[in-house]
Amino acid sequence: MFASSRSRSTTRAGVSITSTGSPTQAAGAFIMAGSPGICGVDPPSLAPVPEEWNIPATRPPGLVIPALLRMMAPNRASPLAPHPTKGPAMSISVVLHPKLPEGVREYVSALPGLQIVTPQDDEGVARALQDGGEVLVSFIWNESYLSPSLKWVASPSAGFDQFPVAELHARDVVITTGAGVHADAVAEHAFALMLALTRNLGTAARNMAEAKWQRPLCDEVFGKKIAIVGIGRIGDAFARRLDGWGAEVVGVKRNPATYSGPVEVIHPVSALREVCDWADILILTSPAQVDGSALIGAAELEALGAGWIVNIGRGSLIDETALIAALDSGELRGAGLDVFSKEPLPADSPLWTSPKVLVSPHVAGSTPAFGKRYVKVFETNLAAYRGQGEWMNLLGRDIPL
Amino acid sequence: MFASSRSRSTTRAGVSITSTGSPTQAAGAFIMAGSPGICGVDPPSLAPVPEEWNIPATRPPGLVIPALLRMMAPNRASPLAPHPTKGPAMSISVVLHPKLPEGVREYVSALPGLQIVTPQDDEGVARALQDGGEVLVSFIWNESYLSPSLKWVASPSAGFDQFPVAELHARDVVITTGAGVHADAVAEHAFALMLALTRNLGTAARNMAEAKWQRPLCDEVFGKKIAIVGIGRIGDAFARRLDGWGAEVVGVKRNPATYSGPVEVIHPVSALREVCDWADILILTSPAQVDGSALIGAAELEALGAGWIVNIGRGSLIDETALIAALDSGELRGAGLDVFSKEPLPADSPLWTSPKVLVSPHVAGSTPAFGKRYVKVFETNLAAYRGQGEWMNLLGRDIPL
Repeated sequence: MFASSRSRSTTRAGVSITSTGSPTQAAGAFIMAGSPGICGVDPPSLAPVPEEWNIPATRPPGLVIPALLRMMAPNRASPLAPHPTKGPAMSISVVLHPKLPEGVREYVSALPGLQIVTPQDDEGVARALQDGGEVLVSFIWNESYLSPSLKWVASPSAGFDQFPVAELHARDVVITTGAGVHADAVAEHAFALMLALTRNLGTAARNMAEAKWQRPLCDEVFGKKIAIVGIGRIGDAFARRLDGWGAEVVGVKRNPATYSGPVEVIHPVSALREVCDWADILILTSPAQVDGSALIGAAELEALGAGWIVNIGRGSLIDETALIAALDSGELRGAGLDVFSKEPLPADSPLWTSPKVLVSPHVAGSTPAFGKRYVKVFETNLAAYRGQGEWMNLLGRDIPL
Repeated sequence: MFASSRSRSTTRAGVSITSTGSPTQAAGAFIMAGSPGICGVDPPSLAPVPEEWNIPATRPPGLVIPALLRMMAPNRASPLAPHPTKGPAMSISVVLHPKLPEGVREYVSALPGLQIVTPQDDEGVARALQDGGEVLVSFIWNESYLSPSLKWVASPSAGFDQFPVAELHARDVVITTGAGVHADAVAEHAFALMLALTRNLGTAARNMAEAKWQRPLCDEVFGKKIAIVGIGRIGDAFARRLDGWGAEVVGVKRNPATYSGPVEVIHPVSALREVCDWADILILTSPAQVDGSALIGAAELEALGAGWIVNIGRGSLIDETALIAALDSGELRGAGLDVFSKEPLPADSPLWTSPKVLVSPHVAGSTPAFGKRYVKVFETNLAAYRGQGEWMNLLGRDIPL
């Protein structure tokens, strides 16, 4: 948490509560403190608080209606209903889960007008929410987190299958995600996995333990056919990075008509088998299927043939039994996996020992810049929560269920 | 070697000699055979033999003079002198070293008008050259290869520090290299090493042996400052692949004025220390220094600080003792190395066990497409050898010593 000479902290067993004071005070304090930032990341750039924010805490509730009306507009697919929101000068109780991506705690804590609660464990999170916590910043869910005061789950993750979405929406709890915040890091990680496969770097790294100088034939991305399955913000970021690599790229998307990114050819999911047949490399970037079923099974892997597969989406997208069979006795040349049907990957999984597999421990979204980028989404949504603007990454509206 | 119903083979202990017949016959035979190619690579696309090639074997020697004159032009820095060359229909004895990159043997053997000799070992190579071999295709050199009949060393490698260049030139032996043929593969390998460092894939791969699910903080290339040291064809291929990655790129070159590639800012080698100070990531792509000295020592590594270094140039470019010190006790975040001062890397080298190092066994140039690309350089030079055009990648002229 950034040091601020004007912030007030109190603690009790396992929980730290910090009030960041009034917006003007906190912002001023932060800027004066000149904190050097964390992990090589610049400190959050807080714009001077606009004059309009200096309005009474008892701002008439009527002023927040436009935002709520937008939430209730016809394109809203979730059962969201209006719920009490607060004006900008009212302190909002924000519970920060102890497990958060790099920098999220620091950047969110530096925002003005929040009462930040930082429990140290799962029980502490549940207690803080029972004690009046309104906003939960967490990509982890536990049923003990449900509380009458909870109004908004602000997840930093792109996926949301961990949340009981229907139940939360039935209780008028807003859910927002971190979709897009990860895109650059995840795209780079997918690229790293792809190149590690074509250049046999996993084998090279594993050979180091025995000082083994073994020179395999490597391959190139140049001239290859690449299919980005479930193309969205991450897939677009991946595709942009393929500029200058001399590869052919197509995307696969549930509804190609809604696509507006940089890839010229988008196929519907119904054509996935044919796409696998065409492709040399599959990059899975989609969230989990609604029913948790696999997109890539034995038939798709057989169609892919002597190619490679990279998964940075969700473990459930691949039928792991079929994958292992394709690696062991099929033509598949390699798999770079950041996500698995069960995480952490169980110690007895054959994926750990397959020479064609590179196991990456679900770190595709990891980046020192995460907090800095996520706080922009959070700030936008904080304003919406206060009735001062549009929600962003709203599950059930911006993010289809 | 591609099967051809019209080729004639003879063998003796350890050596296979195949005459590929007259140009027209061999090309026709190859096309008719419809060979499926090797390693997923298309078979060489041999254009129909031009009508002009059907000229007498006793073509007047005067016709080859223009090519020789070009070789003797003022921009030629090597002591090359004219030597007997042959007309297109005269069979040329070509010795293929047993160790050649993927596909070179097959593609060169498929060329018309050559007497291909394929010794199985070092002694066989020497014997074949003493027996009248004119052309040696090899990136390996042994002093026993010197012979009165040797006229042209056609190396598939980009580096040439393994050859006794002065001695060969004094004997009027032409040396050509494979510069540029590797560029795409090497650039992709350098990129793979860079991303494996920023995404900690080496550690992830090494953790697989223990089924260890350890989640480090990863980093991004996005926003990083990258210096390509010794920028040339490989560096340019690397820089083009950085399009769309949001990184800042500069090149470092002995003589920036001669640069005409895609990178906008090129610094002289004299500014290397300042470049290291500026950069987050160093990519070494240059050949060895003339005197074999290191470009990157303790001072440069200290200037680089908490960055990464990738070397796909030559092992001698980095002072390995200084590198190990910077990894062990300095700020350096990681090194991705494909080349080493001694290869294979000795089993007792601390580089094998450093958790920040990814050891790649000198395979950056490895690609199934190598033979297909190299044969284009070889064909061009074969024509020049026959007095029918310009040499390409000529050491001492196109490739500065």
